[in-house]
Amino acid sequence: MPQIPTRTPNAAPHPVRFVGAGPGDPELLTLKALRAFEGADVVIHDRLVSGEILALAARGTVLIDVGKRGFGPATTQSAINELIVRHAGAGARVVRLKSGDPTPFAGLDEEIDACDAAGLAWDIVPGLTAASAAVAAIGQSLTRRGRNSAIRLLTGHDVSGFAAHDWAALARPGEVAAIYMGKKPARFLQGRLLMHGGNPATPLSIVENASRCDQRVVATPLARLRGDLRDAGLNGPVLILLGLAPHAARSLIQHQQEHA
Amino acid sequence: MPQIPTRTPNAAPHPVRFVGAGPGDPELLTLKALRAFEGADVVIHDRLVSGEILALAARGTVLIDVGKRGFGPATTQSAINELIVRHAGAGARVVRLKSGDPTPFAGLDEEIDACDAAGLAWDIVPGLTAASAAVAAIGQSLTRRGRNSAIRLLTGHDVSGFAAHDWAALARPGEVAAIYMGKKPARFLQGRLLMHGGNPATPLSIVENASRCDQRVVATPLARLRGDLRDAGLNGPVLILLGLAPHAARSLIQHQQEHA
Repeated sequence: MPQIPTRTPNAAPHPVRFVGAGPGDPELLTLKALRAFEGADVVIHDRLVSGEILALAARGTVLIDVGKRGFGPATTQSAINELIVRHAGAGARVVRLKSGDPTPFAGLDEEIDACDAAGLAWDIVPGLTAASAAVAAIGQSLTRRGRNSAIRLLTGHDVSGFAAHDWAALARPGEVAAIYMGKKPARFLQGRLLMHGGNPATPLSIVENASRCDQRVVATPLARLRGDLRDAGLNGPVLILLGLAPHAARSLIQHQQEHA
Repeated sequence: MPQIPTRTPNAAPHPVRFVGAGPGDPELLTLKALRAFEGADVVIHDRLVSGEILALAARGTVLIDVGKRGFGPATTQSAINELIVRHAGAGARVVRLKSGDPTPFAGLDEEIDACDAAGLAWDIVPGLTAASAAVAAIGQSLTRRGRNSAIRLLTGHDVSGFAAHDWAALARPGEVAAIYMGKKPARFLQGRLLMHGGNPATPLSIVENASRCDQRVVATPLARLRGDLRDAGLNGPVLILLGLAPHAARSLIQHQQEHA
């Protein structure tokens, strides 16, 4: 039974740190992320990391935007890997700052592989993922006795296009899922869920800019996901909570369903 | 299409705040959680909230331990609800401090219902969930192109006993899940996964006290989960990562499989 020695929490910082910036509100940075960020020479960040957070960088820090946009990267993954390795190899303390938590949906594995290949030590400073901020914004519990004791986090699309998922399972009553990057593939998501028997009245909450000062929440039933998303004209990053209505609207929606 | 007005981020604090304390390392508190905690008159906390975090409370703060233990609460849920309502109703600023993130696996819905029934305003300050800390500890990405584009968070048991899950789906190659409260039901989990066709060599990482100074990581294949957990003598809270080996041990385990 191999026991893996733990990275000592307070050891000297590694040359490369993969740091979660949280969902956008600078107050949702962890103390650890803030210190890592403040101690960096070079910060390589995603487009979604908010300006308020970038403004916390120490004077003289080099900020490099490698923003990815929906359906494909602005800077290629290999170019990002190269940037990390080049700066860290030259002795800079590099923070690779990712929106939310760096471990899901963030291409972390490829950047780790690049560091390993270059012999560069690294560690991960976890961050608050957008799903936690979104569900806090709608005032709901992610699990509820008698409804669900599991949650899924998934992407609407990945680098190769629309993502494949277990649609029949996701379409079951009581399922709760946080769908990242679900804005562009909304029609696809809606179609797959309805095709697999999803109830058209299934509640969804669309949270734009979760935790930021321009946060917006749109409640919609599955049958109207695509249209309501389009009509709402959301420009920021969106997290879709499948199976959860906002707390304030719960009684309203139940009322509508009862009288439909 | 109902648009729900967002809670203003910097409004006066609500009488009841449900706050995530993160996984244990005080540096993994968010700035927002720290402020909420420091501004509280009464903090009602779980057993798993670390002493290092409780030590950050302002002088004069009333700390109430309502620790739940595996397979049932030490303080009943209704007694916790009553405590929250009683203190907030008497004008105290109450922080209900939960280990990790307050929204999954935390009985949040029942406490919200109690506040609503008592006419008490509340909000949620999200926290870093244990899964993020655990996967950072093993140096892995939760998703990987060609392996998985979804993750599940689930409980090994809930208040009514062993939890029911979609075992056949969880047993599929490439599935990644973070299993909370999986120590006691380890034999049950292992049995269900094997029974549904899970590969006995499926890698698992058991992370005890994720992010704390006494953090330990045990790598084990599914076939040995129960025995390795028992032999390791883990006393702290455990998070099991199904489908992920620790980064450092990955090549070792692949080597063992190739030569088994």
